[in-house]
This record gives sequence, C-alpha cells and structure tokens, in this order.
Amino acid sequence: MRIIKLDTKSKKDILENLLKRSPNNYDSYQESVNTILNDVKVKKDEALFAYTKKFDGAELNQNNILVTEDEISEAYANVDASLIDVVRKAIVNIVEYHEKQRQYSWFNSKPDGSILGQKVTPLSSVGVYVPGGKAAYPSSVLMNVIPAKVAGVERIAMVTPPGKDGKVNSATLVAAKEAGVTEIYKVGGAQAIAALAYGTESIKKVDKIVGPGNIYVALAKKSVYGHVSIDSIAGPSEILVLADETANPRYVAADLLSQAEHDELASAILVTTSEEIANKVSDEVEQFVEELSRKEILRKSLDNYGYILLVENIEEAIDVANEIASEHLEIVTKDPFNIMTKIKNAGAIFLGEYSSEPLGDYFAGPNHVLPTNGTAKFFSPLSVDDFIKKSSIISFSREALEPIHRDIIKFANAERLTAHANSIAVRFEEKNK
Amino acid sequence: MRIIKLDTKSKKDILENLLKRSPNNYDSYQESVNTILNDVKVKKDEALFAYTKKFDGAELNQNNILVTEDEISEAYANVDASLIDVVRKAIVNIVEYHEKQRQYSWFNSKPDGSILGQKVTPLSSVGVYVPGGKAAYPSSVLMNVIPAKVAGVERIAMVTPPGKDGKVNSATLVAAKEAGVTEIYKVGGAQAIAALAYGTESIKKVDKIVGPGNIYVALAKKSVYGHVSIDSIAGPSEILVLADETANPRYVAADLLSQAEHDELASAILVTTSEEIANKVSDEVEQFVEELSRKEILRKSLDNYGYILLVENIEEAIDVANEIASEHLEIVTKDPFNIMTKIKNAGAIFLGEYSSEPLGDYFAGPNHVLPTNGTAKFFSPLSVDDFIKKSSIISFSREALEPIHRDIIKFANAERLTAHANSIAVRFEEKNK
Repeated sequence: MRIIKLDTKSKKDILENLLKRSPNNYDSYQESVNTILNDVKVKKDEALFAYTKKFDGAELNQNNILVTEDEISEAYANVDASLIDVVRKAIVNIVEYHEKQRQYSWFNSKPDGSILGQKVTPLSSVGVYVPGGKAAYPSSVLMNVIPAKVAGVERIAMVTPPGKDGKVNSATLVAAKEAGVTEIYKVGGAQAIAALAYGTESIKKVDKIVGPGNIYVALAKKSVYGHVSIDSIAGPSEILVLADETANPRYVAADLLSQAEHDELASAILVTTSEEIANKVSDEVEQFVEELSRKEILRKSLDNYGYILLVENIEEAIDVANEIASEHLEIVTKDPFNIMTKIKNAGAIFLGEYSSEPLGDYFAGPNHVLPTNGTAKFFSPLSVDDFIKKSSIISFSREALEPIHRDIIKFANAERLTAHANSIAVRFEEKNK
Repeated sequence: MRIIKLDTKSKKDILENLLKRSPNNYDSYQESVNTILNDVKVKKDEALFAYTKKFDGAELNQNNILVTEDEISEAYANVDASLIDVVRKAIVNIVEYHEKQRQYSWFNSKPDGSILGQKVTPLSSVGVYVPGGKAAYPSSVLMNVIPAKVAGVERIAMVTPPGKDGKVNSATLVAAKEAGVTEIYKVGGAQAIAALAYGTESIKKVDKIVGPGNIYVALAKKSVYGHVSIDSIAGPSEILVLADETANPRYVAADLLSQAEHDELASAILVTTSEEIANKVSDEVEQFVEELSRKEILRKSLDNYGYILLVENIEEAIDVANEIASEHLEIVTKDPFNIMTKIKNAGAIFLGEYSSEPLGDYFAGPNHVLPTNGTAKFFSPLSVDDFIKKSSIISFSREALEPIHRDIIKFANAERLTAHANSIAVRFEEKNK
C-alpha cells in the first residue's frame, strides 16, 4: 500500500479521489432508469415481467412471481444446517441490539388542561431490496429486515432478482424466512423498485424501500423518494483504521483487507502516527493479499482507494477521520475510548484490537447498513428509527388557550394569514380584523 | 363546500385528486433546475450572483451577500415591538417542546468485556431555506431553526431571496436573529440550494438543507439529496377535521379555512358522521369566505381540493383519515383521545374543540413543518431527530470474541468474503481456509 505523509495538498487530493466513487456521479444512467420506472408505473405487471425477461432472462407471471412455501422448504434443504444455526445466533444478537433503539410515545401535561406530546407509530409496509447475482448475502437480509420487524412493521415485502431458471438464492430465502419477511418476490433492478413504489397487480405499494443494489437500483430509489421513503443511498464500502504505535500491524492489515475485498471501489485507509506501524502494516498487507482468494479485487481497490496516511500527532489523525467520515472506523490506540469522544463522523466505531470490523458485519448486533462516502456527516446506521414515524399531539382546553389567544392572532395577522387568526378569534367570539 | 357521501369510488377519485398536488408531478422543471445546480457547482459565486441578478433583479457581490449586523439592527427598528414580544414567547414554547425530543447516547456492557452502544452527535452545519416574496413567514424561520439549535448544530446558515433593492424582509431577519441563525445570505431559488450543497467562495457547504420553497427549490433539494441530507420535500398544506355530531360547526369551518387560505393547492377536508354538521359547516364556510381577506385563494382551494365527506360511522372516518394521512388532523368528537389511538397516519393531531390548528402553527411548541400529501405514512414532523446522527459503538475483548469467532468465520465464508473471515481468524492464530 502507498504510504503518504499527510499535508493540506495530499488531503485535498485524497478526499476528492474518494468522492469519485459516489453514486451521485452516475447521472448518465438516469434516463434509462426513468424509462423503466415510468413503464412499470403505467403498464404494471406487464412491464415488470418484460424487464425481468430482458435483464434476468427469467419468465415471470402472476402465478410464479411470489416465492412459495415449497420453494422456501427446498431452500432450507439446500443450506448447510450449521450455517442456519449461525444465522439464528446472529438474529438473537441483532434483535437484542435493535430492541434498545425502540422509541416511545410521550406526552407532557400542565394543570391548565394542555397536553403536548409525540406519538410513535411503525410504518405499515416496507420493501427490502436484496441483490442477486453469484454471491448471496444473507447477513444483508437480516440487517435490513430485523429493524423493521423490531419497529413493528406488519408487512415486509422482499424483492430479489431471479436467475435464468426463475429461482432465487437458497441462503437468501432462509435468511428472509428466519428474519420474518412476509412476502418474497422474484424481481430485481429498477423495475422492482418501481413495483414497490407504485404497486402492480402482483405487488402492493409499500411506504418505504430499503436495501442496497447496483447503480440502477440506487438511482431508482432516489427517483421515487418523496413518493415513498427510502433509506440512504448506498455507496461502496470503506474502512478507516486510526492507529498509534501500540497497534498490532497484522490485525490492522487483515482488517483493512476485509473491506477492500468488497469490490474495486471499496476503500481501506490507515491513519497512523507511527512510521514503524505504517511500514509493517504495508508489509503485512502484501503478504495477506497473496494468500487471499479475492486477490484481484483487493489489488485494484488498494491501488485506487487504499492509503496509509502518516500524521504528526493523534489530533491530526482525528481531524482527518472526521473529514473522511468513514463508514467503518477502527480505533486501535492506547486509549480508544478517549479518542472516540472526539469522533464526530463515522458510521460504526470499533474500539480496541479485538473489535474487528467483520464482528460488526455479522454478529455483534449493531446494523451493518451504514452511511458511506462521507455521508456519516449527516446519515445514521439503518435502525429502528427508519421504520417508525412520529405525529405531534396537541390538546388545549379553553383555559389554556385563552391567555395566549391574542398572541396567536397577532402572529397570524403579521403573516397576513387572516383565516388563521380568525380560527382563534372565533373561539372567543371576537372578530378578526 | 361540496358534500359527498363517501363510497369506494368517490374515495378513490378524491385520493387521486389530492395526489395531483404532489411536487413529484413537476419533473418537467428538472432540466432547468439541473442547469442551475451545475452552473453554481462549477462557477460558484459567479453563477450564484448571475442567477440572483436574473431571477431576483438584485446586484450581489462578495461584499454584500451576507446580511450585516447593521442590517439586522435596521430590521429590528422596522418591526413592531409587540410582534417581537410574541416571537420571543413563541420561542420559549418551541424550545421547551423540542428539548423533550433530545436523544441520548447509550451503551450496554456485559461482564465478558463487551460494550455495544450508540453515540448521538449533532450535525456540524445546516442550511435553512426561507422563501422571500411579498409575504414573510417568521414562524417558518423559528420552526426550522430551533430544532437545529436544540440539537446542538454549531453553524446555521440561512438563505432567503432578496428584493430588487438587495434587501431581505425585516420580520424574517428578526426571527432569524432571535432563533439563533449564525449567517444569513441574500440568495434564493435553486441557486441558493446549490450554493449550500456544493459551497462557493462566499457560502461554505453545509451537511443538511431544510426549509420550504417553490417547485424549483423542492426539485433542487431532491437533486442534491445524497450529496447532503435534506428534510422531506414540502408539498401544499392540508387539514382534515374528523367530527361527530358534538362538534361546533363554526369552529370547524374556521379551522378548515385556516389551511385553505395558504394557496390554491391547499386542501381542507371535513369527514363527519353527522349530516347536520356537514350542512352547518358548509353554511358557516360560505359566510366566513365572504368576510375573509384571502377570499380568492379560499374559493379556489375549496373548489379544487375542499371536501365535506359524509361517512356511516366513526370507524369509516378513521379509515379515510388514515388513508389520506393529512398534514394536520383535528379530532372533534365526544372522545378524541380514544380515536387518536386508532390514527396511524397524520403529521400533527389536534384534539378537542379548543385545539385549533393555528395554535400549532405559531405557538404551542410542536413543529409546524409537517409531512404533506400523504407522506405522513412514512415521514415525521421536523424535529431534533433531523439534526442529529448516530454512530454504532462496538468494543469487544478477546474473552468476548473468542466464543463466537468460529461462527463469524463460518458466516463470512458462506458469503465468500474470505478476507472478512481472515480478519477474525488472524486474532486466534488460525488460518482461514
């Protein structure tokens, strides 16, 4: 891995290079995405089936689009029983963590008869996109479905593209069943997003769409935003390890590679105060790359978006971590909790040398759907918050309204909203001028 | 107002008619919005000033774009002192309510040395859009700025279009100062959104943009979503009053009109079980319209999007209220709290005959920025939640990782992510196969 002594110029170049990976830079696909969205909106199932034939090579109709109980049983038979055990153990941890994110309705009353509050309600229905293709990511199914389930969402509709044979991945089906998905449809791509957003004869419209996908899926989600809600738009994965001289270079190298292997756009960055650690990590990375099965991807993502950044002191390391706002941040220093207090921007923060990033991806409990590409400055991990919404509650008595009614009338008239003023005035038999 | 006996057909037609008002139906403006966004992204201040000249007729430069302390003092002199008093009283209530929305970091530890938690951090910077034009809405300034302030956002940059004389509305400036805005720029339209999203020489980039605007502003916000965060996309205002035979028809009529006066796309709907109330409210509405200053707007919005819907029973009323998912919902029945428990979708819920909607717009404390046009099914009122973000916290000891490390390795290998598996294996001197 290249080792760079960080200065203003190199920092600017690196930040710009990382942002190149943003899904916001692919507007050229927007037109074809819009065509698909509009076709499915207008022609519904007909268009949905036609696009599935075109892109996935599978023949769908209203009788086979929904995964059946038989297909799910078949999937269980196909999957290694010990993997199902691991999935179940992971679910226990993920549920336990997300239960702690629950929010509650509250109210506050005063003796004058006024009540103000906030009511929390789960969304009624959610669509979960799960990518297809060669690799299956059952962990992604768990992470997207469980927070919805914990929030109390009644209808959870999953969509995932079928193979040419019209089947979907067995591990995906098992994870969906274990996590509590209520319906699974064999469709993918922008056409699946359109079906969830607008509804077709076979797929009822949902309130919100979550889950990662390729650039077509990402742009389609952005397009339907407002018509339905969406989670944040997923970009390529990242890790930033912030290490001092106490770090174990072998562990750091392995953790950098665990993100770099995702795809060629993934980014792995070490920020360290120690030149010795920088050199050792670089050596360990070279060794591991040779041994690992995803060598080609690792090499490309490291060449394009991998950096070892040498900084003068820990404050500089914290600053650059906050500027990059990495999806995953590992703090491997003498006193990681102290440094954590100064971290403003990160999706998930891993503290100490045994908190390896894949622990969070699969098992510890927190969600692995995290803000990428600098969006940790304003987005949060996927959570129960994403599957609830709130309503304000206002209940005033005459006694509570009376002493403030002239103030409200004054404010409304200042905004020239005379019917607003009138609605207060009429309750006190006053004419609004 | 037209009175309609609700049935499946009329309900479908009404829902479709209401959705016509959605900002999602104005994609034809997207191209001109994209041109503006891109110009400002590339040419920065130069483009920002040129568009301000073109659309607002004001001559801006780097020396006069920022509102000065002198201009703010001048604004205070221009505004009625008793209005400033009312604004200050409103701020006390709005702050008190939003303080209750604060969320706190938490963690959970186990004796094996594992810690899981969630850290809450305010956004660093926020942009607030405030519309210009003839009417000024100081209440909108308060409602957008105060939750950011309560959340702990350090930098709150407001943008608002200038008049031809290069000045901005005095009441807007006073409200901004009172609410705690840190910078005010005299720019509006899509060009202001671009400046906030990408940054220019004069305006530093922000993390999130909130605040209502015209269709250009709404589309610009949607376009920059992902690059920065935005609040939900504002549509035209609405009220739905759910009333039984105990309601006061004069109050109901006045409240319907308080929303209908906003603009020609505003919608006012009464859903009632009582034919007598339906007829009386219709009569009262006619009388009020003749007396009120915004008669033309009232007439048009009532003709296009005003309805009195007669239903068989209260359950049917609740169902249609949930389907319409109104921005404002007033429940004026014998037992409003009982009905409230069955309401799934509404921005703000007003209970009982003294809880008139303008009480919530100006004074009670809850936010008046609410989900419109059916989006209360998945969006929430603007709140402190909009100005914080969360990071997961994961800290495991060797003792905590050891008993689960084989499970994680198994899960990672099942997803063919061998470098993920390796990062766990290496900590236990195991080779990942």
